[in-house]
Amino acid sequence: MRPRAVLFDVFGTLVDWRGSLIAELTAFGERSAIAADWAGLVDAWRGAYQPSMQRVRSGEAPFATLDALQRESLDGLLVRFGIPGVEEAERDWMVSLWHRLRPWPDSVAGLAALRGKAITGTLSNGHVALLVSLAKTGGMSFDVIFGADIFRHYKPDPETYLGACALLDLAPGEVMLAAAHNADLAAARSSGLKTGFIPRPDEYGPTQHRDLRAEADWDVIADSVGALAEKIG
Amino acid sequence: MRPRAVLFDVFGTLVDWRGSLIAELTAFGERSAIAADWAGLVDAWRGAYQPSMQRVRSGEAPFATLDALQRESLDGLLVRFGIPGVEEAERDWMVSLWHRLRPWPDSVAGLAALRGKAITGTLSNGHVALLVSLAKTGGMSFDVIFGADIFRHYKPDPETYLGACALLDLAPGEVMLAAAHNADLAAARSSGLKTGFIPRPDEYGPTQHRDLRAEADWDVIADSVGALAEKIG
Repeated sequence: MRPRAVLFDVFGTLVDWRGSLIAELTAFGERSAIAADWAGLVDAWRGAYQPSMQRVRSGEAPFATLDALQRESLDGLLVRFGIPGVEEAERDWMVSLWHRLRPWPDSVAGLAALRGKAITGTLSNGHVALLVSLAKTGGMSFDVIFGADIFRHYKPDPETYLGACALLDLAPGEVMLAAAHNADLAAARSSGLKTGFIPRPDEYGPTQHRDLRAEADWDVIADSVGALAEKIG
Repeated sequence: MRPRAVLFDVFGTLVDWRGSLIAELTAFGERSAIAADWAGLVDAWRGAYQPSMQRVRSGEAPFATLDALQRESLDGLLVRFGIPGVEEAERDWMVSLWHRLRPWPDSVAGLAALRGKAITGTLSNGHVALLVSLAKTGGMSFDVIFGADIFRHYKPDPETYLGACALLDLAPGEVMLAAAHNADLAAARSSGLKTGFIPRPDEYGPTQHRDLRAEADWDVIADSVGALAEKIG
């Protein structure tokens, strides 16, 4: 029953993108004397993420990394939120914030514990360069890094889940996806993978209404990475 | 001058394939009461490696992982070395020995030291599953695993060196290949990468005649992974 490999969704599951970005951008606003709804900008930025990837998934747009997608949506959001005078280099810096998001408090120790029991890895819509940077700046160690640019597909396209299994030379049933998002787990299960749900009720801030609880009988449900490591035995 | 990433050739550079395989196969021979020239078989097996990959590089054969190539050459070599009665499952086990080769004595500590200075990774003709297994069983930690199956090309095809740089979102000049083989370094340099030579004068046994010294002015020459970590500053 113990999976041979546990692959992690990263944004929201292992790192607190929202808290990290709001803190960095609020500090930037103070340094630059730009008063703005930075939290609103961050939420809208994340909101633009799925539609951006959907254009790639549907074939409407060619594959592009998250950096390119985030940069494109940022330009429009700065206008929409009435934030003037942000230089090109500052916009690049804002996109680069996605490369050094803070892990949730349990992520680093939980991953270390799990690594003694299974192959650990990422299976993220981030690209390899971003994921390596997140891991290194956050102190998270993995056995293998899988990002969207290896498969040139975004989750939940089955090419991602099955592509990772193929590269590990494991059957889908030997691999678990661990994620804070029910839709990601549902897609992984459709491809035959095992599923581990780690709810992150603060991912979207105090008014979060999605993914507060398991919406299916996932193979493991655990409230931290460390608890998941314990539960897989 | 310090590279942002150091990617390692693995067979011979980080692990002692010859010593590991001879030890395992000799023990197998004793258990099975099969007297054979196991060292000769191991040398011939490694000798079959380049021609096998060459058929993939030239387009004569479709991409196949090292497991498939090693298994194919093993069948012929068992006949050639007059080794009878090796079952299918034993042949599979022999191929799997390539997944758990002993690191050279300096590899584990050297990689750990280097990881504080640069992104570390593999850039090997092994496939991802094999490399993850080698790393895990040998206690070697990397930031990222690149294997031939990600690129569907074997070194020295430029798709491997440049593909790794692209996935790291780094310019070739920011990435160093570290290898015990002059030809690998020459190909990496042709693609614009930095080069680090770590001679392994015992890789091919006591009569080794190749790669005993640097055949060009590689950017760094070091007699261990730890010495390379020191020299890149």
